[in-house]
Parts: sequence; C-alpha cells; structure tokens
Amino acid sequence: RINPDRLWDSLMEMAKIGPGIAGGNNRQTLTDADAEGRALFQKWCEEAGMTMGVDEIGNMFARRDGTDPDALPVYVGSHLDTQPTGGKYDGVLGVLGGLELVRTLNDLGIRTKHPIVVTNWTNEEGTRFAPAMLASGVFAGKHTLDWALDRVDSDGKRFGDELERIGWKGSEKVGDRKMHAMFELHIEQGPILEAEGKDIGVVTHGQGLRWIECTVTGKESHTGSTPMHMRKNAGRGLALITELVHEIAMKNQPNAVGAIGHIDVYPNSRNIIPGKVVFTVDMRTHLLDKLNGMVDELMERAPELCEEIGVAFSCEIVGQFDPPAFDEGCVKAIRDAAERLGYSHMDIVSGAGHDACWINDLYPTAMIMCPCVDGLSHNEAEEISKDWAAAGTDVLFHAVVETAGI
Amino acid sequence: RINPDRLWDSLMEMAKIGPGIAGGNNRQTLTDADAEGRALFQKWCEEAGMTMGVDEIGNMFARRDGTDPDALPVYVGSHLDTQPTGGKYDGVLGVLGGLELVRTLNDLGIRTKHPIVVTNWTNEEGTRFAPAMLASGVFAGKHTLDWALDRVDSDGKRFGDELERIGWKGSEKVGDRKMHAMFELHIEQGPILEAEGKDIGVVTHGQGLRWIECTVTGKESHTGSTPMHMRKNAGRGLALITELVHEIAMKNQPNAVGAIGHIDVYPNSRNIIPGKVVFTVDMRTHLLDKLNGMVDELMERAPELCEEIGVAFSCEIVGQFDPPAFDEGCVKAIRDAAERLGYSHMDIVSGAGHDACWINDLYPTAMIMCPCVDGLSHNEAEEISKDWAAAGTDVLFHAVVETAGI
Ligand SMILES: NC(=O)NCCC(=O)O
Ligand SMILES: NC(=O)NCCC(=O)O
Repeated sequence: RINPDRLWDSLMEMAKIGPGIAGGNNRQTLTDADAEGRALFQKWCEEAGMTMGVDEIGNMFARRDGTDPDALPVYVGSHLDTQPTGGKYDGVLGVLGGLELVRTLNDLGIRTKHPIVVTNWTNEEGTRFAPAMLASGVFAGKHTLDWALDRVDSDGKRFGDELERIGWKGSEKVGDRKMHAMFELHIEQGPILEAEGKDIGVVTHGQGLRWIECTVTGKESHTGSTPMHMRKNAGRGLALITELVHEIAMKNQPNAVGAIGHIDVYPNSRNIIPGKVVFTVDMRTHLLDKLNGMVDELMERAPELCEEIGVAFSCEIVGQFDPPAFDEGCVKAIRDAAERLGYSHMDIVSGAGHDACWINDLYPTAMIMCPCVDGLSHNEAEEISKDWAAAGTDVLFHAVVETAGI
Repeated sequence: RINPDRLWDSLMEMAKIGPGIAGGNNRQTLTDADAEGRALFQKWCEEAGMTMGVDEIGNMFARRDGTDPDALPVYVGSHLDTQPTGGKYDGVLGVLGGLELVRTLNDLGIRTKHPIVVTNWTNEEGTRFAPAMLASGVFAGKHTLDWALDRVDSDGKRFGDELERIGWKGSEKVGDRKMHAMFELHIEQGPILEAEGKDIGVVTHGQGLRWIECTVTGKESHTGSTPMHMRKNAGRGLALITELVHEIAMKNQPNAVGAIGHIDVYPNSRNIIPGKVVFTVDMRTHLLDKLNGMVDELMERAPELCEEIGVAFSCEIVGQFDPPAFDEGCVKAIRDAAERLGYSHMDIVSGAGHDACWINDLYPTAMIMCPCVDGLSHNEAEEISKDWAAAGTDVLFHAVVETAGI
C-alpha cells in the first residue's frame, strides 16, 4: 500500500502554490504559479530517482526505468493546472498519486519490467486557453502543434509565447512517445460515488463534449432613449439561449447536461443596450447520437429565437470530443485491484473530460475515480478525504504494477 | 447666429482625444484622456477671455463676466466624458456649444448683464463609476461629496483617487455657486426628432430612472459532472430576469423602457456553472407612479423566479432620479428662440438623464435637443449633421442671451 500521509503532505505542499481566495487554487496554465508548480514536481521526481523529459508543448514526463530495455512504459498522470477558482485535487491527485506510487516502489525496492512514466499534461482545464485537454489533444493528433501554440487568452496572449515565457517549452516532439498503457487517477467531480458509498469508481466510459462559442449581435444603443420597438438587445439572445440549453439538456435526461459558463458582454455599460454577447455553451452526454442531436437542436433553434427578437446568431465549435470507451484490459486491471485491496467500487461514467480520453484513442487506457465531498469541483471548496485519496492511489499503484509487470 | 464651422472644428478637435475603435470616442471619466480633454477645453475658454473655476469634484466652470456685478450667472454646459464606446457629440455638443456662444458674443462685442458660465460636469455617463450624473448630483445635494469620492470602478480604483491622479480636484466647495438659470444643449439620443423632421426639441420633461444592481447567487460547480438536478446555475437567474425586465417594460407601454446593459459572471469559465452573476437593470419612464410600479414588480417577481430555480436574489438601487419637469420660463425662452430663428421644433421628453435634471431641482433649468442619425447614441457610430449642431447652438445662444439680458 502507498503512504497516505506522504501523499497528503505533497498535495498540501503543492496547494500552497497559486493559492485561491477561498481556500482553493488559482494556478492557471502557463502562469508564473504554473511554472512554480512544475518546478516543485520536477524536484520531487528527481529526488525519487526519475529523469524528466519535456516536449514542445510543455508536457512533463518523469521516467523510472524498467528492467526490460525493450518494454514500452506504462504512463500514469493527469494535470497540475487549475481553474481560476479551482480545487486542490482536480488533476493534482492524479499527478502526485503517480509520484507516490513511484516513491512506494522505491520504498519497497521493486523494479517493474516496463518503465513507469509520471506525466503532467499542459492545459487540461482549458479556461485560459480553450479547448480543454489541449496538450494531450496535440499528443493524440487531434490538433496540430502550431494551432495549439496559436491559441490566445482573453488578454490576447498567445499560448506559445506564454509557454516560452515561463520557460517550459521543451525540445521533444509532441506525440513521439509510445505507451504500453496509461492510467489516470482523478476525483469524480460529481456526487455519485459519495452517494453510493463507494471508495472507487472504475471508469468504463466518459461523456462526449461540445463547446459551442456563440455570438449574438444586436445594436449598441442608449438604454434610456431608444424606444422598445427599435431595440436590438443582444442580451435577450443570451437569455433565450441560456434557457434553450437548459431545456435541451433536461429533455435528454438521464445523463445529459448543458450550461453556459463563460459570457462576455459588449460594451458592458449600465446604460448601453448590449450590442454583442459572446458566450460558450457546454453540452455533454455519453451517447454520441444523443450528443449530436442536442447540438443540432441548439443550432437549429438558437438562430430562430434570435431572429424573432431581431438579433443575429453565429457559432463555432471551440472544443469537442466524442464519448470514449476505455480499454477493457485496463478497466479490468483497475476493478481487480480494487477487489483485491478490499475497496468498495462501482463502474462509473466520467462526467468531465480528461487527458486519458484523448490518450485512449492511441493506447490502452483507463481511469480510476475517488469520491469528492458533495460532488463539488471547479470550486475552491472542492474537498476529498485522506482515506479516499489513499484508496484511489492504492488502486492506481496495484493496477500499474500489475500492468507493468515485475 | 453662431459660427457653424468653428463649432464643428472644435467638435472634431475634441474627438481626437480618446479615440474609440470605430470612429467614436472612449474618453471615460477620470482617465488620462479625460484630463487631456479638460485641458483643451480650459485652453479654449481662456483664449475666449473666460476664467476657470474648478470644484472639489472636478466640475469646471468657465466664466465670462456680465455688466451687472450683482447679477447671478446664467449657466450653460453638459459633459465631456464619454461611454467606453461612445459618440463624438453626446455631452460634448452641450459644452462646446456653450463655448461657441461665448465666442460669438466676443465676435459681436456683446456684453450680457448676467455673467455666463460654461460648465463641464464630471462623470455624467456613470459607466466607470455609477451612478450617472454623479458630480451634478453632488452639486444638487443628492449625494454627499465623500460618498461620491468613495465610488469605485470595476478595477477597484476610487473616484477620489483618480480625480487627484489626473490633477483635476479643485478647491471650490461643490454646490457653493448660485445660478440665475441653466441651459443644456444635448443630442436627442433617440429617433423622434429625425422621424418628425424637426430641427429642435424643446425639452419639457425627462424620464425618471432606476438602476437596480442585482446579484444572483448559485453554486459554482463542474459543467460536465454535476447532474442537472443538483445545479444552482446563477446564469439562469440572469436569463429569467432579462426577460422579466423586457416584459415589464413592454406592458408599461407607451413610454417605458427596460434593459440590462452591464453583466459580470463569476468565475466566467467555460466549464464552471456560474456561481454568481451581478448585473444592473435600467428602468425608465416619465411617470413617477409607473416607474415605481415597474421597480416594485421587478423586486417582487425576480426573487420568486430565482427561488424556483434554486438560486438566491438580492438587489440594491445604485442610481435613481425622478422624472423632472423643466422650468416653464426657461422652456419658453427656448421655444421662443426656435420660433424667432425659424427652426422647426416640437416639445419632447428626454429619454436619457442629464446634468440639467439635477440642477433643475435648484434653479430654473431647461434643455434643447437636436436630432441624431437613426436615434443612435451610446454607440461609436453616433452621428449628427453640422446643420443640426448649428441650429441647436443658435437656439442655445438666443435663449441664453435673452435670459442673461443685454
Ligand atoms: N476534469 C476536468 O475538469 N477537465 C476539464 C475539461 C472538462 O471541462 O471536462
Ligand atoms: N445622456 C446620457 O446618456 N446620460 C447618461 C445617463 C443616462 O443613462 O441617461
């Protein structure tokens, strides 16, 4: 079994970097805080005897050699970047859980046949630079490197420039590595495991996602002196589409979700009728046909609603992945490990997107989930117990060692 | 008659300061651009033989002496600050029209009995620091000076600090001046005069206004992994209230308006359900009872709508004025001047708030309006013709000289 206190201490140590304003973290990708978090992770990896590789998009790969020089590595990992108002565990548990399993192997003096590589994927969250899981997406060939480096944040800063600025642009070609398998441990970010009283979620599938960036264009004018019948109020387009997204998600129950998290109003002045509103619709479900149907309905009805109130609608898909089904062998290794260790477990669908979803397209992959309090994530109040963290990491440890061989 | 070319040249010269991105202006209050605009106005006033006084809130008063040392001055003026995406005439025409009438008096060698004071009121727009007409409001005793100086912008900068930073905090006590009368020339900012083919609007009344800053509080959580029934989506509160405001305005037709121009979403991330949305409702009509009824309906129904979707509602009035009725004598002076000069005219209600609305509570006051193209204002594309500007300023000139006496 892994060392729960050491794991927890490392989680708390990492959480000191990029503190939030309410007990969580703001360690957004490619910020100074991100650089500091990466440096700490590198130091820990080197202390654990691993060697670090960094690719051209800043993905970090800490390697522990195996006994078979020809064997492909087993990868474990997740991400160290956070939301602007994020928790201490989302992503971080998967990276530091990987570190902890190497530390445990060191304690036990075990050498695996396959090497083990602990990974920190760049920009998983996608808040500062859309889309999410950007760097694992480039690794998996979903995006070109150049396209990714050209993403800009809301201040107009380029991803590529920011990566160089923080000093984490490596020389390794993105996607050059081959994997024997990959495992990702992550908090559930939803309420199911806690409600069911299970220690471990064996993730068999994930939800697919579409991020649809919508622009509603009306006409800026004076809130006081423009008669009602002459208005083209882009804010009303946002209002109608907010409710449309909710309606579409509700009628696709069970297991479909939809909301708008990001909204920019122009010019955003109390006495100017909004001339333009830009916002991103997030829609998800684990059935591809249903997901496409939801998006089709949005794209059909949103322009109609806007037309009725005299504003224009346009949209663009800025993030998407189809529902993944994880590798049966890897899933079984996780289920068997949970069983062997005596942890209560259940099969589960991941509500969120993860780097593992992209890697799953290339190599045998699966995920382990642990509960989080009230299902709360993407909130500084995100919380897990030390026992949950330890159980998840124990299962990760066993599944990885089983797969890497001794 | 005034000199239309000189007036227009000055308008164009001022418009070079704080240029917008689409042909208009961004010369928001207490910015460096505001300071530059003030300096240019001061230079022009001094060249026209006037002396400048500045009060503790930055209001500028350029005085041309009269022949009677005991006579109170006739004030003319408006504001030089603009919206972030504002036009070249909103406010500016009233200030530079005042300057032009003094220049014309100089050309003609006319001394009036009462002194004439051309005024630039600080922060009329209220975009950067709510409420609008802040400094004329302090002058009229509606707000205390300390309260006004403590207003903060969205970057947390204090009004008082910014006023000192740009060097325009004067020593004169705000509101110490007595007026014989005040006249304000302003573009209509609405479509009526153009549609009716009139050169001049004789403003008899104004709309009352309420700015209601609303906060909807839900719970930040993950857009993917939070099941629909567990969500507290503050964005839906915004959506429902956007439509409620529209509905209330529509059912109070004719002559009532309502919209939301300013919206801040927290934390504003694509994959976080909004935990909080702060926005300002702007409601107006020229009948006090109707205005209060509209606000009452909002305050009654908004919390109910929010409760139904599991989010909390709170609000605060951050700007308000009751519908003004302008001084009959001043209104008549304007109507007579338009008649005498042969300009087509009509009585009109001001859709927007103006500094004249506050001053009207203290001293005989009235307003002149000139048409603007398509009724468009609070938009960089705001446009007027040189003829319209000249007609309005001619009427201002005659009404003021009539009132100031020769
Ligand atoms: N796990 C996680 O929050 N990933 C970010 C991408 C998403 O929104 O699902
Ligand atoms: N004239 C003008 O736009 N004033 C700003 C205050 C208002 O919104 O009416």
